[in-house]
Amino acid sequence: MTTHPKHAKPDRPIHELLTRRWSPYAFADRPVSDDDLRSLFEAARWAASSYNEQPWAYLVATKANPGEFERLLSCLVEGNQVWAKAAPVLALGCTNLHFARTGQPNAAAVHDLGLASASLTFEATVRGLFVHQMIGIVPERARELYRIPAGVQPLTGLAIGYAGDPNALPEKLRERDLVQRPRKPLSQFVFGGEWGAAANVD
Amino acid sequence: MTTHPKHAKPDRPIHELLTRRWSPYAFADRPVSDDDLRSLFEAARWAASSYNEQPWAYLVATKANPGEFERLLSCLVEGNQVWAKAAPVLALGCTNLHFARTGQPNAAAVHDLGLASASLTFEATVRGLFVHQMIGIVPERARELYRIPAGVQPLTGLAIGYAGDPNALPEKLRERDLVQRPRKPLSQFVFGGEWGAAANVD
Repeated sequence: MTTHPKHAKPDRPIHELLTRRWSPYAFADRPVSDDDLRSLFEAARWAASSYNEQPWAYLVATKANPGEFERLLSCLVEGNQVWAKAAPVLALGCTNLHFARTGQPNAAAVHDLGLASASLTFEATVRGLFVHQMIGIVPERARELYRIPAGVQPLTGLAIGYAGDPNALPEKLRERDLVQRPRKPLSQFVFGGEWGAAANVD
Repeated sequence: MTTHPKHAKPDRPIHELLTRRWSPYAFADRPVSDDDLRSLFEAARWAASSYNEQPWAYLVATKANPGEFERLLSCLVEGNQVWAKAAPVLALGCTNLHFARTGQPNAAAVHDLGLASASLTFEATVRGLFVHQMIGIVPERARELYRIPAGVQPLTGLAIGYAGDPNALPEKLRERDLVQRPRKPLSQFVFGGEWGAAANVD
C-alpha cells in the first residue's frame, strides 16, 4: 500500500480507510464521475440519525456546469475560495433544525449532518477521492442564492475530488498538505469516572 | 456474507461496512475487549475537525465496573435505560463549544462530534460491534455527576456491544430491531441550482 505524509499514524490498529482520510488543499484537475458522486450521497443517505429524521441536505455543483460551480464557490469565505476553486465538485452541507413531522427542535440536527458527511467521506476514501470540509462559508449568501428555507441551517462547505500537487499551492497552504496534523492522546479525551480522568482504555 | 433485515439496501453501490451499520436495541451479554474499545476511540481520534480542534470527548463506562456503569446509565433518559442497560459499554459524547486556544465559539463543535462518533462507529462495524447513539440523555445530570465544565456540551449517549436477540426485548422495541428503517431518495436531499431541485446525480 502506498503511504503519504498526511496518512494517520494511529497508536492502535484502525481500519486503513480511516488512516487514508485527510483534507487536501490541492486538488487535481480531474472530474469525479457521476457514478462515484451518486455513491457518495448514497453513503450519506444510510447514515444514522436521531428518530431516523435524516435532517441533512446537500447543495451540489460540479465544474461540468461552470456557472453553477461559480455560484456555489461564492458561498465560501474568500480564504477557502482560493484553494477550493480547484476541486471539481463543491457542496454545501445543510441541516433542518426542526423535525419535519412535528416542527419541534431537533437537538441532533447538526450532529447528524456530521454523521452523514462522515459517511460520504468514508465512501469517497473507498473510491480514491478526498473531501475537505470547511466551516468557513457565508450562510446568508447561500440562503439567498439557493432560497434555503428558514429553519434549515447551511453549515459546511465540502470540496470533493482527487488530491493534487501541493507545489501548485501558495506556500502557506502547501505546507499544510505535506505535514501530518497532530492528534490529542486518548488520555485527553476519553474519560472515566470524572471529567478529565483518563479512562482505563489507554 | 451474511445478511440481516436491518442491513442497508442501497440504490447505488456503497462500501459494505456502511451497509452493515445499524443501531440495535438488543445487545448480547458479551463484553467488548479492551483492545477493541481502544481502537474505537483511536478511530474517533483521527476524525477531521475544524481547525484540527478535536473538540470531542467521551465519558465511558463498562460492565467490568458495575458502579460506574450504573452511574453512566443514569444519565440516559428512562426510555433509553430500558434497553441500553444490556449493552456492555456505555459512553457519553461531549463537545467543547469553544476553541481551547482562543476561547472563541466553535461553530463546528457539535458537527465535529458527529464526525468523530461516525468514525468510532465505522471501526466498531469493522470489528463486528454495533453502536446505538441516542440524543435522549439528561445533560444536567451528566454535568453534575461527572463535573463537566461549563462550555462543554454533553450531547449524545452511545451504547456499544454485540447485537443480541430481539426476542429478549419488549414487543415495541423488538419490531424496531427487525425492520429496515426507510431512507429518503437522493432527490429529496441532494439539490442543484436551488433548494428542493434534485441535483443531476440521481
